Amino acid sequence: MSDFFADIPQIKYEGPDSTNELAYRFYDKDKMVLGKRMEDHLRFAACFWHTFCWPGSDVFGGGTFDRPWHRGANDSAAAAMKREVAFDFFKTLDVPYYCFHDVDVMADAANITEHRKFFAEAVDHLEQLQASSGRKLLWGTANLFSHPRFAAGGATNPDPEVFAFGAMQVRDALEATHRLGGQNYVLWGGREGYETLLNTDMKRELDNFGRFLSLVVEHKHKIGFTGTILIEPKPFEPTKHQYDFDTATVYGFLKRYGLENEVKVNIEANHATLASHTFEHEIATAAALGIFGSIDANRGDPQNGWDTDQFPNSVEELTLANLEIIRAGGFTTGGFNFDAKVRRQSMDPADLFYGHVGAIDVVAKGLLNAAKLIEDGRIDAIKAKRYAGWDSEFGGAIGGLDLAGIADLAVERGIDPKPVSGQQERIENLINRVL
Amino acid sequence: MSDFFADIPQIKYEGPDSTNELAYRFYDKDKMVLGKRMEDHLRFAACFWHTFCWPGSDVFGGGTFDRPWHRGANDSAAAAMKREVAFDFFKTLDVPYYCFHDVDVMADAANITEHRKFFAEAVDHLEQLQASSGRKLLWGTANLFSHPRFAAGGATNPDPEVFAFGAMQVRDALEATHRLGGQNYVLWGGREGYETLLNTDMKRELDNFGRFLSLVVEHKHKIGFTGTILIEPKPFEPTKHQYDFDTATVYGFLKRYGLENEVKVNIEANHATLASHTFEHEIATAAALGIFGSIDANRGDPQNGWDTDQFPNSVEELTLANLEIIRAGGFTTGGFNFDAKVRRQSMDPADLFYGHVGAIDVVAKGLLNAAKLIEDGRIDAIKAKRYAGWDSEFGGAIGGLDLAGIADLAVERGIDPKPVSGQQERIENLINRVL
Amino acid sequence: MSDFFADIPQIKYEGPDSTNELAYRFYDKDKMVLGKRMEDHLRFAACFWHTFCWPGSDVFGGGTFDRPWHRGANDSAAAAMKREVAFDFFKTLDVPYYCFHDVDVMADAANITEHRKFFAEAVDHLEQLQASSGRKLLWGTANLFSHPRFAAGGATNPDPEVFAFGAMQVRDALEATHRLGGQNYVLWGGREGYETLLNTDMKRELDNFGRFLSLVVEHKHKIGFTGTILIEPKPFEPTKHQYDFDTATVYGFLKRYGLENEVKVNIEANHATLASHTFEHEIATAAALGIFGSIDANRGDPQNGWDTDQFPNSVEELTLANLEIIRAGGFTTGGFNFDAKVRRQSMDPADLFYGHVGAIDVVAKGLLNAAKLIEDGRIDAIKAKRYAGWDSEFGGAIGGLDLAGIADLAVERGIDPKPVSGQQERIENLINRVL
Amino acid sequence: MSDFFADIPQIKYEGPDSTNELAYRFYDKDKMVLGKRMEDHLRFAACFWHTFCWPGSDVFGGGTFDRPWHRGANDSAAAAMKREVAFDFFKTLDVPYYCFHDVDVMADAANITEHRKFFAEAVDHLEQLQASSGRKLLWGTANLFSHPRFAAGGATNPDPEVFAFGAMQVRDALEATHRLGGQNYVLWGGREGYETLLNTDMKRELDNFGRFLSLVVEHKHKIGFTGTILIEPKPFEPTKHQYDFDTATVYGFLKRYGLENEVKVNIEANHATLASHTFEHEIATAAALGIFGSIDANRGDPQNGWDTDQFPNSVEELTLANLEIIRAGGFTTGGFNFDAKVRRQSMDPADLFYGHVGAIDVVAKGLLNAAKLIEDGRIDAIKAKRYAGWDSEFGGAIGGLDLAGIADLAVERGIDPKPVSGQQERIENLINRVL
Repeated sequence: MSDFFADIPQIKYEGPDSTNELAYRFYDKDKMVLGKRMEDHLRFAACFWHTFCWPGSDVFGGGTFDRPWHRGANDSAAAAMKREVAFDFFKTLDVPYYCFHDVDVMADAANITEHRKFFAEAVDHLEQLQASSGRKLLWGTANLFSHPRFAAGGATNPDPEVFAFGAMQVRDALEATHRLGGQNYVLWGGREGYETLLNTDMKRELDNFGRFLSLVVEHKHKIGFTGTILIEPKPFEPTKHQYDFDTATVYGFLKRYGLENEVKVNIEANHATLASHTFEHEIATAAALGIFGSIDANRGDPQNGWDTDQFPNSVEELTLANLEIIRAGGFTTGGFNFDAKVRRQSMDPADLFYGHVGAIDVVAKGLLNAAKLIEDGRIDAIKAKRYAGWDSEFGGAIGGLDLAGIADLAVERGIDPKPVSGQQERIENLINRVL
Repeated sequence: MSDFFADIPQIKYEGPDSTNELAYRFYDKDKMVLGKRMEDHLRFAACFWHTFCWPGSDVFGGGTFDRPWHRGANDSAAAAMKREVAFDFFKTLDVPYYCFHDVDVMADAANITEHRKFFAEAVDHLEQLQASSGRKLLWGTANLFSHPRFAAGGATNPDPEVFAFGAMQVRDALEATHRLGGQNYVLWGGREGYETLLNTDMKRELDNFGRFLSLVVEHKHKIGFTGTILIEPKPFEPTKHQYDFDTATVYGFLKRYGLENEVKVNIEANHATLASHTFEHEIATAAALGIFGSIDANRGDPQNGWDTDQFPNSVEELTLANLEIIRAGGFTTGGFNFDAKVRRQSMDPADLFYGHVGAIDVVAKGLLNAAKLIEDGRIDAIKAKRYAGWDSEFGGAIGGLDLAGIADLAVERGIDPKPVSGQQERIENLINRVL
Repeated sequence: MSDFFADIPQIKYEGPDSTNELAYRFYDKDKMVLGKRMEDHLRFAACFWHTFCWPGSDVFGGGTFDRPWHRGANDSAAAAMKREVAFDFFKTLDVPYYCFHDVDVMADAANITEHRKFFAEAVDHLEQLQASSGRKLLWGTANLFSHPRFAAGGATNPDPEVFAFGAMQVRDALEATHRLGGQNYVLWGGREGYETLLNTDMKRELDNFGRFLSLVVEHKHKIGFTGTILIEPKPFEPTKHQYDFDTATVYGFLKRYGLENEVKVNIEANHATLASHTFEHEIATAAALGIFGSIDANRGDPQNGWDTDQFPNSVEELTLANLEIIRAGGFTTGGFNFDAKVRRQSMDPADLFYGHVGAIDVVAKGLLNAAKLIEDGRIDAIKAKRYAGWDSEFGGAIGGLDLAGIADLAVERGIDPKPVSGQQERIENLINRVL
Repeated sequence: MSDFFADIPQIKYEGPDSTNELAYRFYDKDKMVLGKRMEDHLRFAACFWHTFCWPGSDVFGGGTFDRPWHRGANDSAAAAMKREVAFDFFKTLDVPYYCFHDVDVMADAANITEHRKFFAEAVDHLEQLQASSGRKLLWGTANLFSHPRFAAGGATNPDPEVFAFGAMQVRDALEATHRLGGQNYVLWGGREGYETLLNTDMKRELDNFGRFLSLVVEHKHKIGFTGTILIEPKPFEPTKHQYDFDTATVYGFLKRYGLENEVKVNIEANHATLASHTFEHEIATAAALGIFGSIDANRGDPQNGWDTDQFPNSVEELTLANLEIIRAGGFTTGGFNFDAKVRRQSMDPADLFYGHVGAIDVVAKGLLNAAKLIEDGRIDAIKAKRYAGWDSEFGGAIGGLDLAGIADLAVERGIDPKPVSGQQERIENLINRVL
């Protein structure tokens, strides 16, 4: 083990009354909740990019984090140090999973040959680190947005060579994910969209994007990868418009290219709110459309219009999110990955733990609360009663009729339906009872 | 003719140099633009609701418009007066089309029988007014959101009786539209969505909504209506979330219920911007997905987060919108309907003309500008060159390969694609040259 | 007592474990918190307008609430019934205070003479109701935005007769507030702003607004009213721009007209978020500027850009708000008024109680949590340590120097200050510990 | 001259019909408009930071601009090359002014001594370049936000050493601005605000900020600088909240510290829209409050919630902005600085010219249009008539009365003021007539 986190003790469950700021108060991995261990419900993962690759820079200023692996070039030694420290972190935090982009874990490559070579070295090392640490891969992905060659997109780039370069990266990252036992493979199309509609052939770009995704699905089957392919919706940023705007948009895209049974969504809380939705709305939508996959847990700032990627800290929000996940049947291959970064001013190594430990407890408490709401049953009962008319004689009668038949029946019966209380305030109170 | 607009002269084209504030400077209906008369390009319609039904109220205050037909109850005489005045307006403005909701044109009904009776009377009268005025119906629709019975939605209401009441209204409004020679039938699901996810069974509501729309399509064919069925996207308001969020969402919904070849979208500018899109984005998206139908022309206020429904007044915005419409092949059954209202402080009858005359000229100038851009050809050439790589040897080579084949080719060739200028500023300048 | 709320029991404190949905679990009015009774900390008020005047209408539909006093004209009998029922409500809810606009409590007036007469009748009745019920007036106000005459504003109206009509209303409402023992007098300038800058003389309007406020302050002193004059900031809606945009803007306005020691702010949570601020930011800003007055408790919807005026339901948000109120020294004449309305679908009388009972408990729990944070002291200690440098030798040294002196000292010492962790995630965790 | 822009011809005025994409069609610097040369009206400046310092990076990807001065370290030679190329640009574009931050024009410094040395070298060179090129300095400023030491702010930093470091930079930059004949000195408090209120002592930070500004004003007078001190409002980004939120907030801040006659605002279009205002609103507000100073011309994207800093391209927006500037009496020391950057995909040197040339013409056309509106006089007449009541007998009568006097007069006269049309649509049409 490296000594980067030498001052940080192993993080453990100590219960609600613990005064230890670096212990779990709610995340008790073996506790049974609704018949399943908490760890198996939540399937937590930590990520490489925000926590180990980002130097604490923003658009208006340079990096504030003084990490040893950032002090020189990102060569093979620096990349190896970063991987070591990351696995120390995953173990100390005791999350079962981690996630990465290809370029997160490797040395900087000057050309396509080096890219493959350095990535392959990194994957060998990750395999060893997984074995020695007992950590598993929730998902892998390829970064088709940071290098200047992707300025105009990856799969949707006007230049077919960029499409091909991206194909190389995704092929390699998908095969690496397969080899490392990854549970899913994710595509976030950060630059799959446009800066200006004025120079964009949207139909062609959508078709190229559809073809790219179809090729990925085909390759997955060819190599025998049984994990899930996930798309991560986001409405914009860095682009003016991203094609994977939100879950409903992704659903339409999948249907258009016949992929709705092959691909699911990886929902990020902050992307949901940027798209003018609640986090729980996106989960419920994905569930209703049959494409719920996984979660990128974080939060946005309701007053700021960009992706702040802060750690979740609202038990209220996570209670509602967990409620929808439980209703969706829970995760299969997915999990809660923390796509969250400590603030630029949180430059101490301990801050990485404060961010994750607090967030894990918030999600865990959210699960406990959601389970209480399910067990209580009152909200489900109110909802069931609200739709009970569809099981009445009239509800049944109109089930088999055409438009004219229904209209005629309405007239014949002289119906005069009255509005009924939706009891929103009462339900909100019932939720507050478990918080 | 009534004398409500007695002071207003017939609105005519007088050319760019006219100093008459109530004349068209750009809308010259017989002028040929790209081989078609302006009137046939733009297919302008005025609407009943904002212009003749709304009394100038808002959430914080009562009506400021003192219209004679609003002075007492909305009985049969008042409704008839309103219809007369509206047709005077359509003629004086010289727009070829108009649009209405069922309840806009009829007396208030106390029950389902009265609803059908009063609506039938109104339709008889509209038929006479169309004949005498030479005005045509762009589209009809039914209002399934204003009456308290629709508080929890129409087709997505938890109560099947409300679904049935709505079916009656839509059946009658669709048949009336057919009889009046309407070019389209529109559904705006103002309350098809939710106030709170907490009491909502989203999957059931979506399925009911899908069924309702399927019944409407089936009925259209049964009665021989050859116009287009249109859905009007809006993200929210009055609901917290509306299921028809935007064009891409509607597309996914149509695909889910197998209706993508039966239903198109009626795009409203202000709904587009509320959904975080530009107006032209929504048109381009609909075109790319094959569901572009018609336009509700208006504008929002970029600083205000609700549907302000102001008259379009930006030639710049309308140039881009017309450009996308031309690229989409122009309207077939659709047109430019003004779903716009004068401000609450614009209570003079003349203000209704200032609003419409200015807006018609803005749209017409936008068409002229868009035609110039098409004829100039430089923007199209820049765009074509941007994607030219797909017609190169490499673009062709990767066309028939699978993911591994493409990746291997990229490696074999040692490709190193460089970013290329997207020329956004240059293109923006080219557009400003025609304004 | 009327029998409108006959089915509702007196609301009482029953403790956290109560299963009674219409009891307080946290609001225990006599409980001592930081040395003061909860009732004296929170000073709850319920309001007339949303709860007894609004019929459940919105921009897209008519009223859904079937209240007996709304069934006919708002004549003297209806207004009296409304006042009776309102006081039943205040008592049953057991809030010590209420609030009203002049027009909320009176019959509709056809002219200025009737206005004064009907308002005077209402005030007589309110005085009796206060005496018999033991309820008190937190604040009164005059409505200068609903009647069509105020379409272009009250104090900022281009027409001096409107200014004068408003002066009459405010004079009478201020004197009534004084007579009824009101603790504050509020001005919300709902239409003091503009619909379009194009027809607006901003400087003149600001000066008229300043003069109006100065006249009110002068009159307050003349009649011996010792309550506080409050302005309620809001950024827009119904106007495109409201002059009282937010607390900082109001502060500048008060300074401009020399009123910063005479007038404070009544902060509404939903207005804060519409202005791109958090609720607690507005409280902290008012405290820092010395103008914190009172609270209009409600919440907005972060995904909807208008004033939804929902009941507060986030203990997390109210914990932070209470924390800032305690730091500001608590209320003097102010209190927590519920400027919140049940949803349009919550039409049952019981829903009014669900809304208020839940909200009162949320605010009370927020107070309890905030007190725990104060007592714990860790957050205050982190903050104090963060600024401790200003008490160091260097901090002292630069205290008395001019710009050049400070710059020279910096150079002389060769200072090289390093960034220090702001510990945001740690502090957020500390807050979550008390929730 | 360097040869970086060797392919770009001198930019000249060629008139509206020119087909040269790199010529001015509207910016005719010697043309008289409302009695003043265009150049003297508009006082254009180009900036160092976006155009010569930014490498084309964003939060999600690295630099796409391959500038020779970015290829190695930013040492003295690279900084000198950058200055040379920048002045070539200013001359070729033929703008009279330029603007800079201290760190924009100098080599990277390792410590405070180097900072002063490298900056002094740069200023010597700038002085020579000004002389040889005939370009002048519109304003200088110091960057107190990019270096990690400023992570928690400059003047509002919890650490007094950072305050002192900032004082050194501002002292030197202000003196350099004075020496270089700068017309103004600007402060943009990019990190003067907070990331979280939870660790922030707002009152102390505001007081430190007020003291810092007071020291700057005092020093200005001490050294005999007669230019204007300007503050640039922005609501947030990179901070969660910036203290200089908007013009009205800055006004209140200046009043609080007695600086309202010493400091004015530098208004940026994109900052205005992020603060939920129009660009012209901020100008009109500054004019009404007597603090209008200068302009940072750019535009935001109404659908994106961050500072996109795009080049202005809307003649409509710039017409309204110029109208308000003319009404404010025009610039004194201020001017139009382009705080705008070409898109990340616009990496060709020519793109820098497309951006600026198009923008200059948009602003110039806006000025021409605004002048036409002033000369036409109809809008001013409508506005004057709207407020004419204040010059009537009644308007005069209430001028000298107190609140009770006005109220009594209103009652005595039985006034019943009616709403009057604000004619918004008509005015919007009048504006469109000049576009």
